[in-house]
Amino acid sequence: MTKPLTLGLAGLGTVGVGVVKLLQQNADLYAARTGRRVELRAVTARSKDKDRGVDLSGYDWEDDAVSLAKRDDIDVFVEVMGGSEGAAKDATLAALASGKDVVSANKALLALHGQQIAQMADDAGRSIRYEAAVAGGIPVIKSLAEGLAGNRMTRVMGVMNGTCNYILTRMESAGLSYDEVFAEADQLGYLEADPTLDVGGIDAGHKLALLVALAFGTQVDFDGVELEGIQQITARDIHHAADLGYRIKLLGVAQMTDAGLEQRMSPCLVPAASPLGQLEGGTNMCVLEGDAVQQVVLRGPGAGEGPTASAVLGDILDLARGIRIPAFGVPAAQLKAAPSVKSAVAAPYYLRLELRDEPGALARMAQVLAEHGISIDRMRQREHSESPATVLIVTHAVQRSALDAALADLPQTGVLGDTPLAIRIEKV
Amino acid sequence: MTKPLTLGLAGLGTVGVGVVKLLQQNADLYAARTGRRVELRAVTARSKDKDRGVDLSGYDWEDDAVSLAKRDDIDVFVEVMGGSEGAAKDATLAALASGKDVVSANKALLALHGQQIAQMADDAGRSIRYEAAVAGGIPVIKSLAEGLAGNRMTRVMGVMNGTCNYILTRMESAGLSYDEVFAEADQLGYLEADPTLDVGGIDAGHKLALLVALAFGTQVDFDGVELEGIQQITARDIHHAADLGYRIKLLGVAQMTDAGLEQRMSPCLVPAASPLGQLEGGTNMCVLEGDAVQQVVLRGPGAGEGPTASAVLGDILDLARGIRIPAFGVPAAQLKAAPSVKSAVAAPYYLRLELRDEPGALARMAQVLAEHGISIDRMRQREHSESPATVLIVTHAVQRSALDAALADLPQTGVLGDTPLAIRIEKV
Repeated sequence: MTKPLTLGLAGLGTVGVGVVKLLQQNADLYAARTGRRVELRAVTARSKDKDRGVDLSGYDWEDDAVSLAKRDDIDVFVEVMGGSEGAAKDATLAALASGKDVVSANKALLALHGQQIAQMADDAGRSIRYEAAVAGGIPVIKSLAEGLAGNRMTRVMGVMNGTCNYILTRMESAGLSYDEVFAEADQLGYLEADPTLDVGGIDAGHKLALLVALAFGTQVDFDGVELEGIQQITARDIHHAADLGYRIKLLGVAQMTDAGLEQRMSPCLVPAASPLGQLEGGTNMCVLEGDAVQQVVLRGPGAGEGPTASAVLGDILDLARGIRIPAFGVPAAQLKAAPSVKSAVAAPYYLRLELRDEPGALARMAQVLAEHGISIDRMRQREHSESPATVLIVTHAVQRSALDAALADLPQTGVLGDTPLAIRIEKV
Repeated sequence: MTKPLTLGLAGLGTVGVGVVKLLQQNADLYAARTGRRVELRAVTARSKDKDRGVDLSGYDWEDDAVSLAKRDDIDVFVEVMGGSEGAAKDATLAALASGKDVVSANKALLALHGQQIAQMADDAGRSIRYEAAVAGGIPVIKSLAEGLAGNRMTRVMGVMNGTCNYILTRMESAGLSYDEVFAEADQLGYLEADPTLDVGGIDAGHKLALLVALAFGTQVDFDGVELEGIQQITARDIHHAADLGYRIKLLGVAQMTDAGLEQRMSPCLVPAASPLGQLEGGTNMCVLEGDAVQQVVLRGPGAGEGPTASAVLGDILDLARGIRIPAFGVPAAQLKAAPSVKSAVAAPYYLRLELRDEPGALARMAQVLAEHGISIDRMRQREHSESPATVLIVTHAVQRSALDAALADLPQTGVLGDTPLAIRIEKV
């Protein structure tokens, strides 16, 4: 049997503890699968003495992640601390510089510094692996980088923030407002310290940026992700969407267009009967489309101790088996810097307009849309006793730029009672 | 750049032609992803002169698959001919014996001779890869063998025969009988030359046997798969199941129990709202459950030129990148010969009984079930004008052996108008 693969683990939160448990309970299985023992040598975390419900006595303790990353007796530095700067970044770079492979669950770090880290790994002849950074237990990085490597990818989509999906499905099922469900999620501990990371789409945007680099062979470009959160979605929108046969999801969509790379993380309407539309609660889903495979859909738990540790172990066992490929599928130096374009692909939109209840209001609104070449597929005005009245419109496919211009002109008509809301209807 | 990876391709049907097309259209992409050219050198098929809509002039022609497999100028033998014996088997063994890696789409060959082939590959220090043999374009072999390698798998399920799923969903949507849809599928060319391979569950059983070996580290044991086809399912069963909130699928289920390994490929009722229940037409789905990841669901096209070629290319590109693992996750010599058990896990069942319309019939039937410890969860007798009358029962969880004993005793009551049908209700 080959010599053991040795690990240093930085971070003993939910994921780190899950990794320790799996290493302890499945050790023989891993030896059978990789032909060598996989052994944890040393750990670090913020607090040494906290009881984490797992026996850490067999491992050395390091006070500092960088020291851990540089230890001579580890082959792989496992980073599950989180944070895009500071210790996580320093330790990751130190590990690569000192000839270790790195397994990371840190989407923010990779989304913001992925190009630098991938290049450094290539230069050092080491690997940086990050299955756990995207969509929890779903083996989407492996599917995209390896399983579907025969494809020129055409589009990648994903519902990858369980908190947002929980909020949206809970608003629908319980008929509660965004603020009410947000407060509930906060009490349940579902929210990040800065909830904007979740509800603003930033966390999911980080994940999308990583999938995109892999799918299209481009430099990780989180700044190129068009971000829109779910804060503006009302229970009425969810209800209206359902009436039209849709559900609202915080959906990441990326595709390469003639004009450049389009990456969006925003609320979208998707058909209620589609796999994406049927997704409930914290479950994640990734949709991968390629020239050969057509469409593959992967679904699974997006977070949690077991699922995320499963992804970390998948990466570790690959390294134990000697499986190494560049971080984003091709050498970092070959990743292209694609120009980013905002919503380049035309799509139908759902519009919610509040119109003052006065003669000619509808006509003036419709006129503005027409002036911008926006044609109406369906329109509904509900019975109402109040002014303004809600008018719901589904447009035919339109460029986002034309839509934005129309939305900018609408207030000048004087017929709006509130700011209009536009949500893209994604073809899935 | 490393020297090219060279291929010999046996079989120029749908899949083979798909592979040639991808190799031609995505050649530069593959070179970027693997760091080397991937080059087809020689091909073979039944007929040399047939126009296949693809330019084969750049490749040598071999009349015989074994000769192709032994050529000195190929690194990888790609077998997409099919057939569990004869040329496909001879050529696969010849390729391994002469030091080639093999990429195969041949589920029957591997289901029946997987242990021998895996052992031979290990002995030769070569790889046998078979992503395309199971669930078409879905990267399920890779997900199970690598992505989820950190898990002790607990259950594996799959809808993996598009023809059966087409027949069942078409019976439901069009309200047609099994025979009518079977004839339709035949006309559309959806059926194998021997349709029992599809509708008898054999083809899907082959695929399940491969997933099981990978998931549980056991020797491939197709004979241990409990097989039941869809021929007995009537449009009424589908309708009744829908009334109860279920859909009927030809579902493969495998789990390791204390008594041994349970592998079934049989019609099952699954909740209509579950991902399996929502699956339509020829799409395949695999459900992978492990101690850490909980549940991952993979969905995609189960057949067709592009999707299957995508799977073949995934394997080829892995070899080009130097990714090699044993065929079934651990060395063939370590695969366990697990005892096979029939339906060891208790489950509720859907029963369709035709009872003569006479006093006491229901009581006598219920008495027999009670004698075998089978308790009734729900029962429905439809309004009827004919005798026998259809009685539908959903039982509480029961061992299949007890159910079979009850079904064997029922005819003696003299109240049955027809052979009863029992379909398992699988918890998904």
